[in-house]
Amino acid sequence: MNYSIVRFILGRTLLIEAALLCAPLLIAIIYQEGIADIGAFLITIVVVFAIGALMSFRRPKVSDFYAREGFMMVTLTWFLLSLFGAMPFLISGSIASPVDAFFETVSGFTTTGASILNDVEVLSRSMLFWRSLTHLIGGMGVLVFALAILPKVESEAVHIMRAEVPGPTFGKLMARVSQTARILYKIYLVMTGVLILVLIVFGMPVYDSFIHAFGAAGTGGFSIYNASIAHYGKPALEIILGIAMLLFGVNFYLYYLIMLRQVKTALKNEELRWFFSIVAAAVIMISLIVLPSYENIATAFRDVFFTVSSLISTTGYVTVDFANWPMSAHVILLFLMFCGSMAGSTGGGIKVSRIAIIVKTVFQDIRHAISPNRRIVVTFENKPLSSSLQQSVSVYFMTYIIFFAFCLLTVSFDSPTFITAFSAVAATFNNIGPGMDAVGPTSNYSDFSNWTKMVLSLAMVAGRLEIYPVLVLLSPKTWRKL
Amino acid sequence: MNYSIVRFILGRTLLIEAALLCAPLLIAIIYQEGIADIGAFLITIVVVFAIGALMSFRRPKVSDFYAREGFMMVTLTWFLLSLFGAMPFLISGSIASPVDAFFETVSGFTTTGASILNDVEVLSRSMLFWRSLTHLIGGMGVLVFALAILPKVESEAVHIMRAEVPGPTFGKLMARVSQTARILYKIYLVMTGVLILVLIVFGMPVYDSFIHAFGAAGTGGFSIYNASIAHYGKPALEIILGIAMLLFGVNFYLYYLIMLRQVKTALKNEELRWFFSIVAAAVIMISLIVLPSYENIATAFRDVFFTVSSLISTTGYVTVDFANWPMSAHVILLFLMFCGSMAGSTGGGIKVSRIAIIVKTVFQDIRHAISPNRRIVVTFENKPLSSSLQQSVSVYFMTYIIFFAFCLLTVSFDSPTFITAFSAVAATFNNIGPGMDAVGPTSNYSDFSNWTKMVLSLAMVAGRLEIYPVLVLLSPKTWRKL
Repeated sequence: MNYSIVRFILGRTLLIEAALLCAPLLIAIIYQEGIADIGAFLITIVVVFAIGALMSFRRPKVSDFYAREGFMMVTLTWFLLSLFGAMPFLISGSIASPVDAFFETVSGFTTTGASILNDVEVLSRSMLFWRSLTHLIGGMGVLVFALAILPKVESEAVHIMRAEVPGPTFGKLMARVSQTARILYKIYLVMTGVLILVLIVFGMPVYDSFIHAFGAAGTGGFSIYNASIAHYGKPALEIILGIAMLLFGVNFYLYYLIMLRQVKTALKNEELRWFFSIVAAAVIMISLIVLPSYENIATAFRDVFFTVSSLISTTGYVTVDFANWPMSAHVILLFLMFCGSMAGSTGGGIKVSRIAIIVKTVFQDIRHAISPNRRIVVTFENKPLSSSLQQSVSVYFMTYIIFFAFCLLTVSFDSPTFITAFSAVAATFNNIGPGMDAVGPTSNYSDFSNWTKMVLSLAMVAGRLEIYPVLVLLSPKTWRKL
Repeated sequence: MNYSIVRFILGRTLLIEAALLCAPLLIAIIYQEGIADIGAFLITIVVVFAIGALMSFRRPKVSDFYAREGFMMVTLTWFLLSLFGAMPFLISGSIASPVDAFFETVSGFTTTGASILNDVEVLSRSMLFWRSLTHLIGGMGVLVFALAILPKVESEAVHIMRAEVPGPTFGKLMARVSQTARILYKIYLVMTGVLILVLIVFGMPVYDSFIHAFGAAGTGGFSIYNASIAHYGKPALEIILGIAMLLFGVNFYLYYLIMLRQVKTALKNEELRWFFSIVAAAVIMISLIVLPSYENIATAFRDVFFTVSSLISTTGYVTVDFANWPMSAHVILLFLMFCGSMAGSTGGGIKVSRIAIIVKTVFQDIRHAISPNRRIVVTFENKPLSSSLQQSVSVYFMTYIIFFAFCLLTVSFDSPTFITAFSAVAATFNNIGPGMDAVGPTSNYSDFSNWTKMVLSLAMVAGRLEIYPVLVLLSPKTWRKL
């Protein structure tokens, strides 16, 4: 294990965090907030900057960097950033308990949006801005951001990006990874900017537009109102955000194709078609289920579309208390929560491409059982599915289920009902936010014990980084070999 | 598709069912039951015998028999046997609704033990005997029984046995499959006989001993009392049945080894060690969870041991209303329900060997992520795990999850709570019987709609036959190729 390079890049990333913390500081100054908030950000910036500078002062001599270093660094980065990112909440007294502050910040960076705040509206504007800014940072990946702005060796970059960008395969858009990172971030920020403008045009206050665009772009879901998006009661805003969440759940590679005017190729993407088919099927099924309880078909349809978009994109914005919907709607919503969005997007979950590969593999197997002597080739994205990809997706799925089961068992000690435990793990592990029952859209995670909150924090990081980096870090084997 | 051979073997199996139906007829005569019961069995025997004789009158000319024929025949057999097996309940009026009678019979043959009877104690002794006899028949497999007593061509036998004996691999004990089938059935019946004797010795009435030995041997779980085994209130009987259920959850191949005096080899079996480790871990964990609500440690331990044994062996006998246990205990019990017993036993579930292979595959993958250049070999049962076996277990697991999700969605339209739907599917698909909440140990499946009961019946057959035969039968591809 090349410690010095891990230390060096971690230090650099902390410097970036210190720089990003200047944004909420600026907000605190603009809105003339009290010394508690301004001071909290100032102290944090100084501390983070100092530690970051110390860690990255000496350049590493050996630049060996392999998958193991990549996994370890990515996981450590996410934990460290959350640890330091929680400081402003603690210092200002916005969140009293250190575990709660950590949970909230992890939830921000991992773009989960699960909150322990019973009343989010009492927080200052600068605190809420920082809370939502973590969504924007976490959405595309902290280290991908670092790659985009720092000069890097190619070998490190590949391993970092592979560990941080979600999905079963990793496609480089450009020859160099740092160029790929830069393009991804450009598309991401331009789309966020456009969303902010559209929200403002349709009547959302400027500050709110930034916050909710951050939440939609990172598919996070933190709002500044207890009622989330339902606060506005404006159908237009709900439709815009509903569409926006879906768009940020699309593989950013497709936007790059569109940039290159290869619109047709982008629209032919098989994962995209699966994604929108699942959304359409879910909207139709749930609409039929909830229709009897609505007076207006359009309202029902809008509520369902927003909820489906919010959950499959793993954002977690709320316009309706879906806890009141029939149980069968809950089961469909749970499926969406597990499915998640497309690979290479800012969303979480198992990812549509993995689901597609799993379904195709299962059907291949059934056809093989019917005709054992025929060679059955299955294609995905117009290429034959390689058995190594099928194998890696299967193993990922099994790892996912085992990790899920472990978290479910832990959380069940602390939950009133099965659906609470089940949906709490589903909503954090898949980086969504609200679950059902005691952690439903109108409740939050504050009632859990500190121990449960730590486990759910781990689940959020594991979900965001697709488990392996976290398991590698937790494995004794990693440390024995140093 | 070779129709005539399917017809022929189906007919022969119906003849066997007609013969087996003479047992409850005898019981009805011995206990001098009314004309309703005696008549019901007589009519059924005549009908089943006639149809069976007609179907198997003409021997097939072509004896081609492949996997497809095997899958189709096994599935059709199980559905047909259940259909005809339900006749006595309907004709005698013991069960009023045809769907209910079918559900109850499927539940019997698949050794599930899920009941729609609100009051089982009003049924006549002959009806209860037939209901429990289906457990004994279904435990080892209807067609395996046919193989054991009928002369067969080797090629058919292999495909039938592979489709009906549960587990990821299929080991022949003897050179010829029919010999293997005969040995399996001998071991099975001798063990059942011993259990009957032991139960009688420890004070259970003779008739009851037969019933409960059938239920334990087939890991079914039908009782003749609404309170199940709790009816007796005798700790000794609970301990005996607790141990017996575990023993019938063990791979019968190991008993064959013991017969050959290779006790050491049998005890070294890796799946066996996993099985007993899981049981031990579950008993310890759940005991710690429920201990505060018990006054007596021994009682708590006995209740927990019995419940763990009953659920992991997928039997479903009850001595305590575990619905009252804390939620965390429920989650552990759910894990056991999914895990199931050993391959090659009479139990259901995913099977311990598959769980072991899944866990080993996942750990192999994590180690591979840490050291991508090292070849990591994983062994199971002292042999390196072949990647084709790993692949087939992974695909089975994914098929299992998809099938489970499909059933869960269907049942959720008809369930009051999530845990009801989830555990109802878990308890039927894994062939256990009682679930939680509305289908908990003190309730039954009578409240579900006919549609849900049919879906759960399908789940029971799919679970007993390990999905593929049922999916192959449901696949349009199978029928297109005729």
